[in-house]
Amino acid sequence: MKIPDSQILVIFGASGDLTKRKLLPALYELFIRGLLPRAFKIVCAARTAMSSEEFRRTRIAEMLEMSDATARNSSRLGEFFGLVEYFPFDIGSADGYFLLRDEIHRVRSEASIGDNIVFYMGAPPAVFPAIVDGIRECGLAAVPDGGSRRIVVEKPFGTDLKSARALNEKLRSCFHEDSIFRIDHYLGKETVQNIVVLRFSNGIFEPLWNRNYIDSVAITASETVGVERRGSYYEGAGALRDMVQNHLLTLMAFVSMECPSAFDSASVRNEIVKVLKSLRPMGESDIRRNVFRGQYSGGNVGGKAVCGYRDEPGVEKNSEVETYVAMKFFIDNWRWGGVPFYFYTGKRMSKKLSEIVINFKSAPQMFFAGQCCGRSCNRLVLRIQPDEGVSLKFGLKVPGAGFQSTQVSMDFDYSSLADITLPDAYARLLLDAMRGDSTLFARSDAVEEGWKFIDPIEDYWKNCGSEIPKYPAGSDGTKEGVELSFEHSGASCSLPIKNELTVALPKASNED
Amino acid sequence: MKIPDSQILVIFGASGDLTKRKLLPALYELFIRGLLPRAFKIVCAARTAMSSEEFRRTRIAEMLEMSDATARNSSRLGEFFGLVEYFPFDIGSADGYFLLRDEIHRVRSEASIGDNIVFYMGAPPAVFPAIVDGIRECGLAAVPDGGSRRIVVEKPFGTDLKSARALNEKLRSCFHEDSIFRIDHYLGKETVQNIVVLRFSNGIFEPLWNRNYIDSVAITASETVGVERRGSYYEGAGALRDMVQNHLLTLMAFVSMECPSAFDSASVRNEIVKVLKSLRPMGESDIRRNVFRGQYSGGNVGGKAVCGYRDEPGVEKNSEVETYVAMKFFIDNWRWGGVPFYFYTGKRMSKKLSEIVINFKSAPQMFFAGQCCGRSCNRLVLRIQPDEGVSLKFGLKVPGAGFQSTQVSMDFDYSSLADITLPDAYARLLLDAMRGDSTLFARSDAVEEGWKFIDPIEDYWKNCGSEIPKYPAGSDGTKEGVELSFEHSGASCSLPIKNELTVALPKASNED
Repeated sequence: MKIPDSQILVIFGASGDLTKRKLLPALYELFIRGLLPRAFKIVCAARTAMSSEEFRRTRIAEMLEMSDATARNSSRLGEFFGLVEYFPFDIGSADGYFLLRDEIHRVRSEASIGDNIVFYMGAPPAVFPAIVDGIRECGLAAVPDGGSRRIVVEKPFGTDLKSARALNEKLRSCFHEDSIFRIDHYLGKETVQNIVVLRFSNGIFEPLWNRNYIDSVAITASETVGVERRGSYYEGAGALRDMVQNHLLTLMAFVSMECPSAFDSASVRNEIVKVLKSLRPMGESDIRRNVFRGQYSGGNVGGKAVCGYRDEPGVEKNSEVETYVAMKFFIDNWRWGGVPFYFYTGKRMSKKLSEIVINFKSAPQMFFAGQCCGRSCNRLVLRIQPDEGVSLKFGLKVPGAGFQSTQVSMDFDYSSLADITLPDAYARLLLDAMRGDSTLFARSDAVEEGWKFIDPIEDYWKNCGSEIPKYPAGSDGTKEGVELSFEHSGASCSLPIKNELTVALPKASNED
Repeated sequence: MKIPDSQILVIFGASGDLTKRKLLPALYELFIRGLLPRAFKIVCAARTAMSSEEFRRTRIAEMLEMSDATARNSSRLGEFFGLVEYFPFDIGSADGYFLLRDEIHRVRSEASIGDNIVFYMGAPPAVFPAIVDGIRECGLAAVPDGGSRRIVVEKPFGTDLKSARALNEKLRSCFHEDSIFRIDHYLGKETVQNIVVLRFSNGIFEPLWNRNYIDSVAITASETVGVERRGSYYEGAGALRDMVQNHLLTLMAFVSMECPSAFDSASVRNEIVKVLKSLRPMGESDIRRNVFRGQYSGGNVGGKAVCGYRDEPGVEKNSEVETYVAMKFFIDNWRWGGVPFYFYTGKRMSKKLSEIVINFKSAPQMFFAGQCCGRSCNRLVLRIQPDEGVSLKFGLKVPGAGFQSTQVSMDFDYSSLADITLPDAYARLLLDAMRGDSTLFARSDAVEEGWKFIDPIEDYWKNCGSEIPKYPAGSDGTKEGVELSFEHSGASCSLPIKNELTVALPKASNED
């Protein structure tokens, strides 16, 4: 793997959860794997007054507590934190940026680092514009000859099309589009990237990958957790903005896009935008019939009583914000015309599960009719988490006389690959950003197409006047959502298939 | 499962190996499973003078020694042998058939059995015509109102087209074609029948099952044993007649046939004949280039020194009989035009293995070129024995940065089906014959088409004047055969793929 050029990584909002829980562990993983630049420093900027020494000490203690993986491998933590400098910094102060610039110069010359900087926006979205302006005004954004300036932005990328456009304009006022890395951590997941490899490195999947052979596609991302400490953020977002607009549309794009002519950033992202542009826009009657929201009420998750969303800290007592979305939609192009796509996402669901299910059409001759559950005998399941892997469900002969079919499953688990630890999504994406490879980052036009699709749904909900339906914490979602799922999976298919006969032998006996 | 009508099963040659090792254990399995007719007797006819009691006692002792499965379940052996009568009988004596007829009448009226008889030809092929004539002349073959007469014939069905036609004419002089059950025990195997269910109960395989997506098909049936006690039989047969003409052509037909319009005997067998008729006939130059024979010389199998074929008991010292065949051929129809089919079969090979490998064409865009072994990333492997099951080999992303592909395998093992013992092939076929279902038996036209394809190869070998090539016992066959296999499998693919990375990660590092 190519190691990035020497550079400085500046993290804004470095005292926050993201830095602590994601960025530093990911950078440590890259350090352990020898993938950090040979000359490299991390400048952590945040409001709290603190020395670098103090910052390092606190973070080391936290990391040892937090992550099993880090704790197992902790012997080089001290060495790693030698790369970390802390810089107390007020985002709102113009002077602060000039002081930061001087600090960066100091660190660079001390450590003989080339003139390459990656800015990581770990601060809340509200202050993004101020930071971008500050960076530009102190001259830090100007790209030097032979050097580079990149910026990594965390979601949300706006809250609707208008705000996303404003944010994109602001970012582009200071950085070239190719230097803006909008992180969608789903794209950092191996199993998500694997969708593309699975589709395009095999001769057998792509011929089937269209409306002639596919009955429907269902993408699920359900969590058992509630909003946790993010109540006040979530009040301004909801499941549609927090999950659908970014993660689920991205998964959908990887599943449905045409094969790019090359595996570079421009080619791949052009195809993603093409398929997003083919989403059939939804009018009010489509939304009423095919998009269902919900909000969790009190219930029981994993044997533990939990409160409803409205009782979570930071949430309004009469909040109408959705924590659950189930929806059906279409892609109007030659490959997908008429094939329904389904999204399911929610918090406080019965199980934690991210997966993509491709339901293939059933065979035209019904020798074995009624012997497999649901409309389709054949399902390709791409499991994103947990138990990352691929399963193919197919019909097989029931042993014994006659020709009876039953449904069995052929499985591949990533865990069966010897000696492979799946890299952390943030580690992969940080490495790509430092190497300047933006293939797995959202481009501005993709973000905007996502909002174009989502905005009418938000508008409809705001204006529909009905109260948000509730579902008990620990359930499978709202009644409407569960009914929607029956469209593409027989009720019996919700049972896990464990290579057991799902059709009992006696059935054949009675009829024959 | 439908239990057969009450009937009498007459086994000719009942003192032979087949009855001892296959028929009686299979009938006992049906007995244990409650699948034998409610009123039922087995009349075992053979030359040796012996009482029924003596026959039963000897057979019970043998069966307890021989079969693990029988021994585990032996408590009802005594009860089962209550169904068995022994009848000393000289095949060559015309009187014998009249005495046999009387014995059958006696057994039938004693046990209140309907007028249904199945004759099982367990005797050597040379005496088939005499038995058929004897049955006809004593009046046993005449089908009574509301009764039935069936005959089960063991291979070989002739030794060439001419003798097969003569045998078919002889059988049909006495029995209706629908009442002639030519047993090919390969068709009794679950995994063979499953080819049809896999293909036609699933929406995803059939669209790929043609020359547009399939690169080649390889069918292998290799054994580690030699000719054992069958040397003198084998001298008149050879691998081509013993394995290719029947078993391998049958497997090929199941893999390649069009979908029948129904799953009944006539529809399925019509499709089998259709594809056999589409085999491209081979001229001398085709045979010279694409058909390779071999004979094992002394060697080492599983750590044990073994003799060469010419030193086996019953074999001529200068025998030119082949114990190994490797061949390539084509099916000239719309589905298969241009797709090479390969057969590999041999005795005293390095491993015991029966499998069908469907090699799919590789992807048209070579993003991942050179990262999978061989010409094709995708293989569907139908394992007939051992470890009955299905595997799909496909490309998957190598975890880590970049988009590298590696080959992994998705597996289904029959053994993972809880509580399923795969029924014995003979049990399945005996049950079908007793029920009158001839779907899994070779029809006369199929047998004759097989010989039409095989005869020119036998003729060529007889007249080519060169000595038969040798291969050491315990090897993978002759040099020509091994080279032929490289056409459809890269050399590295002969290694088993065990869900391990077959492409090392460093390759990507060097290039990027």
